[in-house]
Amino acid sequence: MAAPNKQVLIAIIGAGGVGKCFLSQLSALATRRPSPKLSLCYISTSKKALYNDDYTPIALDGTLEALAASSRSPPSLSQVVDYLAAAPHKVVLVDNTSSQDVADHFPTFLRRGINVITPNKKAFSGSYGLWQDIFAAAAESGASVFHESSVGAGLPVISTLRELVETGDRVTKIEGVFSGTMSFLFNTFAPTSGAGGSWSAEVKNAKALGYTEPDPRDDLNGLDVARKLTILARLAGLPVESPTSFPVQSLIPEALDSCTSGDEFLERLPAFDADMERTRADAEKEGKVVRFVGSFDVAAKQVKVGLEKFDKSHPIAGLKGSDNIISFYTERYGSNPLIIQGAGAGGEVTAMGVTGDLLKVLARIG
Amino acid sequence: MAAPNKQVLIAIIGAGGVGKCFLSQLSALATRRPSPKLSLCYISTSKKALYNDDYTPIALDGTLEALAASSRSPPSLSQVVDYLAAAPHKVVLVDNTSSQDVADHFPTFLRRGINVITPNKKAFSGSYGLWQDIFAAAAESGASVFHESSVGAGLPVISTLRELVETGDRVTKIEGVFSGTMSFLFNTFAPTSGAGGSWSAEVKNAKALGYTEPDPRDDLNGLDVARKLTILARLAGLPVESPTSFPVQSLIPEALDSCTSGDEFLERLPAFDADMERTRADAEKEGKVVRFVGSFDVAAKQVKVGLEKFDKSHPIAGLKGSDNIISFYTERYGSNPLIIQGAGAGGEVTAMGVTGDLLKVLARIG
Repeated sequence: MAAPNKQVLIAIIGAGGVGKCFLSQLSALATRRPSPKLSLCYISTSKKALYNDDYTPIALDGTLEALAASSRSPPSLSQVVDYLAAAPHKVVLVDNTSSQDVADHFPTFLRRGINVITPNKKAFSGSYGLWQDIFAAAAESGASVFHESSVGAGLPVISTLRELVETGDRVTKIEGVFSGTMSFLFNTFAPTSGAGGSWSAEVKNAKALGYTEPDPRDDLNGLDVARKLTILARLAGLPVESPTSFPVQSLIPEALDSCTSGDEFLERLPAFDADMERTRADAEKEGKVVRFVGSFDVAAKQVKVGLEKFDKSHPIAGLKGSDNIISFYTERYGSNPLIIQGAGAGGEVTAMGVTGDLLKVLARIG
Repeated sequence: MAAPNKQVLIAIIGAGGVGKCFLSQLSALATRRPSPKLSLCYISTSKKALYNDDYTPIALDGTLEALAASSRSPPSLSQVVDYLAAAPHKVVLVDNTSSQDVADHFPTFLRRGINVITPNKKAFSGSYGLWQDIFAAAAESGASVFHESSVGAGLPVISTLRELVETGDRVTKIEGVFSGTMSFLFNTFAPTSGAGGSWSAEVKNAKALGYTEPDPRDDLNGLDVARKLTILARLAGLPVESPTSFPVQSLIPEALDSCTSGDEFLERLPAFDADMERTRADAEKEGKVVRFVGSFDVAAKQVKVGLEKFDKSHPIAGLKGSDNIISFYTERYGSNPLIIQGAGAGGEVTAMGVTGDLLKVLARIG
């Protein structure tokens, strides 16, 4: 059992949608679990920072107001490393940003013994060199790094894949719908029963309902799915070089590559509805529906992201709303895959994955 | 990082189907992970035991042959507790039996600092008093107890439920197919397309294919499902007294309660085919199929196990083979549940859950 006076310091970078939800989950967790005592020692956005040079804890209620009122601007990331490495207790850095710059500093944080947890995909889906450096740094110092929410938000995707591999199962293939936006778009555009609207109308509708990024091209280019596939393929043992080193189908028509804004893109998209209509009709002719999926095959060393057709009775065809689905094909599970399904985006469930990671770190150090 | 000479001792009770698979996974794990060194110090069946009084490790190859050749009979469980508590290293007890007697000793093992991992349902679905005692003992000594494979074999069911609860989500309802046998029986008896055979023919077929217990009544009485529901409901916060303290529908016709053997039961079962035929036809009239499910509703404090009708497009209706499916309805996940699906029985996947538990213990102590 943890000594009653043991303390663990939490440092948070990022206070956006996920960051706010995490902060509230952290506050509730600190109340529920008196030991080890969880203390917030640092929090920052791109504009402000809140911390005390002597590590005096920051209150876990009214934190955001205090941060907004702070007169300190955020120190450089190397300064944050130095500050946290000199702390009198064990430290967990929570990166709730999607910043490549923060991700690039993970090896430095880890080498200095600072545990890292994050939903930030950039760290694990950038260059393979950064991936190797992160895990080498963790192995050297014994610090932990967890990133459950980098794929499927709070769904237990990364932990399940890790456990399959670490217990000696052999993953042969992973296939799934990894984007809540793409899930929603195709579940409404090509439902298993009834009829969807035109492609451009469904994209506009999804944006109006808040299911897309502010600029929908950031979803439609397929890169978000490619990043998640990169992470899973690497965990399964494929040394994928980058999320652009395998075929990724973009749903942005080539002729619209030149659009200078998301609004211009949406305005001109209807001219290309006939292409997507043909794709939908081709699938329908075979009694199938079209879905945007990512998959990799370990034996064939093949990773791909794009449109595929599925029987209407297939679990991928039957998804609801903006749910994700991930099918793990392994030696032990044989012909029927292990399947995990549910909301794969949203502040609360993404923060839950981060809070779950924090619990795993505490089990190791607390 | 673990010190290079650190050792963790493993003690195994049970060398049946799951035990054999676990032993082979342990042997592979010990080879892959040099630190901490995993050493087998004790293994026993109900007839034989293999261990050295000075804890000299038992070889991880040829273990079963050495056990069969051993001249030692198993000591009493209290003697095993004393032996392991006096070991010079940390110890993990692996209970690969389904013995109530071993389960009853878990609090004693845990109080003496011995970590416990097991697929044994009896410990967690027996009296609520034993449940409380097990977790109180673990909290007192700081030893760990994990039982992933007690529900859904290697599927990440227990760990997911624990994480939902521990991160502060509120589970409102859990529903699913928790028995591979019941899954197979109803997927073939009432498929979503095509026609199944008579009930008694399907039961005989399932037994012939090895999907049932040697006496199929041990599956058909619903107790196995009730035990799993008991475990999940308790983890979600319902203080369920026992697996017989809520409604459990048995599929054994009352008139056959008096059968003295499984063979006699199977011989007389066809006389009751009309009852199940009526159930199947009633569902079919509504365009549905019948399935054997377990569920609990936290607000209503209601736990139940039995036959229910599902739309053919419902994920529970669309299960394949002998797969399990578990739907977690929670506050954070809203109207669409988090779903986990896949093989929920079999030696390798059950042992994988146990090996995964061992990795969790090692992360804490290794």
